[in-house]
Amino acid sequence: MPAPLRAAVSDAAWLRGMLEAERALAVAEAKAGLISQQEADAVVEACGRSYDVEALAEEGRRVGNPVEPLVRALRATADRAHWGATSQDILDTAMALVAREAKQLVDAELDGLAAACARLAEEHRHTVMAGRTLLQQATPITFGLKAAGWLTGIVQARDVLATAELPAQLGGASGTLAAMGERGLDVGKLYAEDLGLSEPAVPWHTMRVPVTVLGARLAIAAGAVDKIALDVQLLAQTEVAEVREPADGSSSTMPHKRNPVGSSLARACALTARGAAGTLLAAQAQEHERAGGAWQAEWGALSEALAATGGAAAWMRETLEGLEVDAERMRTNISPDALSEAARFGFEPAGPQDYLGSTDALIDRALAEYRR
Amino acid sequence: MPAPLRAAVSDAAWLRGMLEAERALAVAEAKAGLISQQEADAVVEACGRSYDVEALAEEGRRVGNPVEPLVRALRATADRAHWGATSQDILDTAMALVAREAKQLVDAELDGLAAACARLAEEHRHTVMAGRTLLQQATPITFGLKAAGWLTGIVQARDVLATAELPAQLGGASGTLAAMGERGLDVGKLYAEDLGLSEPAVPWHTMRVPVTVLGARLAIAAGAVDKIALDVQLLAQTEVAEVREPADGSSSTMPHKRNPVGSSLARACALTARGAAGTLLAAQAQEHERAGGAWQAEWGALSEALAATGGAAAWMRETLEGLEVDAERMRTNISPDALSEAARFGFEPAGPQDYLGSTDALIDRALAEYRR
Amino acid sequence: MPAPLRAAVSDAAWLRGMLEAERALAVAEAKAGLISQQEADAVVEACGRSYDVEALAEEGRRVGNPVEPLVRALRATADRAHWGATSQDILDTAMALVAREAKQLVDAELDGLAAACARLAEEHRHTVMAGRTLLQQATPITFGLKAAGWLTGIVQARDVLATAELPAQLGGASGTLAAMGERGLDVGKLYAEDLGLSEPAVPWHTMRVPVTVLGARLAIAAGAVDKIALDVQLLAQTEVAEVREPADGSSSTMPHKRNPVGSSLARACALTARGAAGTLLAAQAQEHERAGGAWQAEWGALSEALAATGGAAAWMRETLEGLEVDAERMRTNISPDALSEAARFGFEPAGPQDYLGSTDALIDRALAEYRR
Amino acid sequence: MPAPLRAAVSDAAWLRGMLEAERALAVAEAKAGLISQQEADAVVEACGRSYDVEALAEEGRRVGNPVEPLVRALRATADRAHWGATSQDILDTAMALVAREAKQLVDAELDGLAAACARLAEEHRHTVMAGRTLLQQATPITFGLKAAGWLTGIVQARDVLATAELPAQLGGASGTLAAMGERGLDVGKLYAEDLGLSEPAVPWHTMRVPVTVLGARLAIAAGAVDKIALDVQLLAQTEVAEVREPADGSSSTMPHKRNPVGSSLARACALTARGAAGTLLAAQAQEHERAGGAWQAEWGALSEALAATGGAAAWMRETLEGLEVDAERMRTNISPDALSEAARFGFEPAGPQDYLGSTDALIDRALAEYRR
Repeated sequence: MPAPLRAAVSDAAWLRGMLEAERALAVAEAKAGLISQQEADAVVEACGRSYDVEALAEEGRRVGNPVEPLVRALRATADRAHWGATSQDILDTAMALVAREAKQLVDAELDGLAAACARLAEEHRHTVMAGRTLLQQATPITFGLKAAGWLTGIVQARDVLATAELPAQLGGASGTLAAMGERGLDVGKLYAEDLGLSEPAVPWHTMRVPVTVLGARLAIAAGAVDKIALDVQLLAQTEVAEVREPADGSSSTMPHKRNPVGSSLARACALTARGAAGTLLAAQAQEHERAGGAWQAEWGALSEALAATGGAAAWMRETLEGLEVDAERMRTNISPDALSEAARFGFEPAGPQDYLGSTDALIDRALAEYRR
Repeated sequence: MPAPLRAAVSDAAWLRGMLEAERALAVAEAKAGLISQQEADAVVEACGRSYDVEALAEEGRRVGNPVEPLVRALRATADRAHWGATSQDILDTAMALVAREAKQLVDAELDGLAAACARLAEEHRHTVMAGRTLLQQATPITFGLKAAGWLTGIVQARDVLATAELPAQLGGASGTLAAMGERGLDVGKLYAEDLGLSEPAVPWHTMRVPVTVLGARLAIAAGAVDKIALDVQLLAQTEVAEVREPADGSSSTMPHKRNPVGSSLARACALTARGAAGTLLAAQAQEHERAGGAWQAEWGALSEALAATGGAAAWMRETLEGLEVDAERMRTNISPDALSEAARFGFEPAGPQDYLGSTDALIDRALAEYRR
Repeated sequence: MPAPLRAAVSDAAWLRGMLEAERALAVAEAKAGLISQQEADAVVEACGRSYDVEALAEEGRRVGNPVEPLVRALRATADRAHWGATSQDILDTAMALVAREAKQLVDAELDGLAAACARLAEEHRHTVMAGRTLLQQATPITFGLKAAGWLTGIVQARDVLATAELPAQLGGASGTLAAMGERGLDVGKLYAEDLGLSEPAVPWHTMRVPVTVLGARLAIAAGAVDKIALDVQLLAQTEVAEVREPADGSSSTMPHKRNPVGSSLARACALTARGAAGTLLAAQAQEHERAGGAWQAEWGALSEALAATGGAAAWMRETLEGLEVDAERMRTNISPDALSEAARFGFEPAGPQDYLGSTDALIDRALAEYRR
Repeated sequence: MPAPLRAAVSDAAWLRGMLEAERALAVAEAKAGLISQQEADAVVEACGRSYDVEALAEEGRRVGNPVEPLVRALRATADRAHWGATSQDILDTAMALVAREAKQLVDAELDGLAAACARLAEEHRHTVMAGRTLLQQATPITFGLKAAGWLTGIVQARDVLATAELPAQLGGASGTLAAMGERGLDVGKLYAEDLGLSEPAVPWHTMRVPVTVLGARLAIAAGAVDKIALDVQLLAQTEVAEVREPADGSSSTMPHKRNPVGSSLARACALTARGAAGTLLAAQAQEHERAGGAWQAEWGALSEALAATGGAAAWMRETLEGLEVDAERMRTNISPDALSEAARFGFEPAGPQDYLGSTDALIDRALAEYRR
């Protein structure tokens, strides 16, 4: 996985998210008149300091979550830190912030991958190759159509992922905002606005549809990438040799080999993303007002789903951007039987290029959908 | 699972879908001038006859899919049946039709469940009970707020499921519509219109984002139901006794027992739906222009995901519709410690009902979101 | 999936298992002196009658499990039926019986598949072909070595599956056998002996290691089959053409195509088995003395895992038994680069057949392990 | 997860494993006469140096695996390093070494947990409490019996895990050991012996039964722990209050709360282990002689499965070791209805302690199985 993605879901990033949540809470509470400006300033100052990520994580493990030790540290100088909030408010909001930042990187990789697919669809609009069903040659297609299909998958996955976002979380101990008296909803609104997160109708401490939606969509995006990686691997086989990966995947002992490293790693990432999303789905049913176990399992799983999906997209973007396409080989690989169907439907094509049906128009449609 | 749901995903329903697809194809092809009206009429007639579901399924298993034997049967009297199509065109379209019909039943159950949640949220707006985090009593809430949280989950799951639909499928052998010459796109448009399905930009034979989106959303909806079932089970415990299920879950040897049968079966359905959705996600990467294995695994998994999600929703709808709520017990169960937090935040509540923060307003927000 | 396997996990088979459990219970109780011989005879007689599977299933759904209505039916003529037992005793024992019967079929298919692999390993001991890593040609192997690797996987999976079995279940309402007074353990012993099932140390109503072990091993066996199917699909590709499946997988519109139907369906079955095993693993943690949901989810999942694993093995056995191997094509497919590594290690092979290292001895070792 | 476990599966541990594999290979090759003693000494020396874990991991990501850059580093001073081996030989062997070391820690935690269960079974042999089915009180049990059930699960899971081990891997480029000429099998034997790993019949580069067996058994062990954690959480509920966790899980704002932190984190670990095992199972089918994606996905998943399973066991061991059991509360919690079944079976117990059937003998059986 790309270093920026790993950084975006690191313990340090989660800590930044928690500090940002605590800061925004204090600011919102001061605006709403719940705490004084001076008290808020102390919190903001404390949130701006740096903390020992490892130590907090270690201590957090002992008490069940890392917010408790962090709050203790903040309160050394800012006794109104975390006023009226519960640990999950801060951690869920940190999760939303981490997810937002990491998702931007994932989106960018998916955009890049879509662009690479679109370019291939356009450039190879007329590059005739064998269609293959159940891994047997069927009627001809063009490589542009294949790339257009890939493009469609990425566009759909990207569009569906785009609307997956985690809202701000603020509910206090049991989700009633009781410790904030009359001002709970005001604080919640200001808090979400400050952070640029959406405000949910009610706290979602144990109603995790947004988390599972995000997790599932990441796995689906990784799956759309996986399909491309699978096709590239198959096309890059020695016996097919219609494409070659750009990456330096040469073998130490077999210099002639050009391993499809990018698509292999993309596939590995897709498997990982799917596993992590499965954990998120399995963790959806959470007890009463805060779960004992299912919630805690989300932290690592969501980080992994984000990083692995971004990793899959990044590997495949790089791979397609530098993909070497052997149009001549594509043409010569086509089996003489490829046109055997044609006669049955009253066609007498001179060659594969004459039995492509609506291929060209379909590519246009995929490109139009992409550019929309 | 309710009988209508099982019927909606039965082999017979799939066969109906296939016949409907073949019928619509012939009609579209006649309209587009690809086959004659008379030829189309023969197909329509053949599609109206009844076929032996079991025999087709058995034979289909031998050749890899049930469309092949069906087409052979249709062609006994209608030789232009399935003209220019591939088996997957018909099966995927049947899958779209089966999913649409079954999803209507699922949607209806989710609607009923949402209505039951909304009624409980309204009726128990002032029914004070213990909030519980990590299964320990925390600050008080109302049962209305708990139901409002449930409602939010169902509304979100329902809304996200509402937009999941499978498009029509028509691509021919390799997805180029070659056997239809110039008329492929016209046929595809008419075909989708006739069936009331959306028309995809390009065939989605191996680009399965729509299938995984549907599968994942079903599992998420089942998970939202699962959360309610879990809470009901916990509240119905002998030692808690705040709710009782309506269903006749009495034990043969222990007549005093009232087993939470509905929520137990809902939870079992949720587990099943999650497993089936996992299979769909695992099957996303499909080879070239038609997959050998991953596609075939979708049929049973999608049927199961639909039936199990509908089953979960149906069980929980029934359960909540008849739920006996013991408001008095809810009140007396509240631990004296429930208000221990209040003093720290400057409150001196006379009782739990005085330390509910924004509970009432939050319920209003959940109901407003539901009624929107 | 083969018809016998589907029958072995059908509702009728589960009903037979329940009747067998009730029968064995009564017989054991009479032997232990808990009920009279006459009372036991009445139960045995009632268990020998036939019941309406569908009606019991439907009614069972309403009350949470099918044993309740069955017991009511038995008691019409045998009032000591089910004496001191709990529904789960009967259902879990039925599950053990169903699993045992179905597993014999699975084992037989795996045995047949192993035999087919062994035959290929022996016959193609000297059939040189390209080794392929990351789907790129590497140094040469023989097809016998590839088949030996397949064999090893099946032998390991079969051996590990062989020891997975479910014990008899008898514990009464809470697992204490209280309703049987002093005679509980005697009854349990006689009951297990009669059924030919192992006797557990304590009831396993909610301690489900045996169920998950069985489920996981089925998925692993299906996965070992899946690896073979994947290789066969890849070798059968038009461009590789080193093997052909025997099955009638010809396409209606493309008569030249020989689809790898067997390996495709085997792969679909493997995906299904994996999903079902995942549900069993997810259902492992069960509450207190009887679970509300997780237990109920096991019934369908275990049936599916058994049938799908057997289905995968059966498809692949048939496929390998009739596999057409093109040794000439294997030889000519080998890339000239296949020997490029050799020089680096001081070898100057005249051809691929001279750079096979320990291939022959490795095949012997795999065959010896198989025959042990 | 405990720090030693995290260390045992860290990148540094994997690197140690790779170096150990390269060292053992050179030593074996010198013994077998394939390379000179001097050449081997140079490799041993190079393997004893320290390397930059991060840099190797980063570079490894680029070329597809971390062995390639490591070998380059070793060859700076030892040109016969990695002689005749393939990257996967080294990485799989490292995986076996990492798994062995981490599994010892897991085993130790499971042993400790079993001991804690056994102690509770013994000590609370006569501590009467409510049996609970579907979360409703049923006939009485003892806490000793419940602990005996937990014990059985851990013993079974531990025993089944004990025999899961990964063999040494040595096959060279395509698994034929060709680059070692006549000496391949000798080297393989010496290599495995030196490392204390079992020697497989044939290379298992793409026959991954051992990996999935290990992964599944880890998830099953985590699931056995999960069942205990679930019961403890339920027993620790405010309204039940029969046990209390020892850990400092007090809430910052609600000092009366004693959160079940240990069981919550154990449950989170179990979810994580299950997800990771799912990834391993999904990765079982691997192409030809080396997989492009599935193999690479195993590294992180196996590390996670090991660490999470060990983490679950460690949390629960600590929790049970310090568990506070309120026998008086257990007794008074028993519902008056708990004995309602007794009369039907001809018993007239004076109290719950008189309706325990074979409870005592069952505890003995579980303890005997444990001590065997």
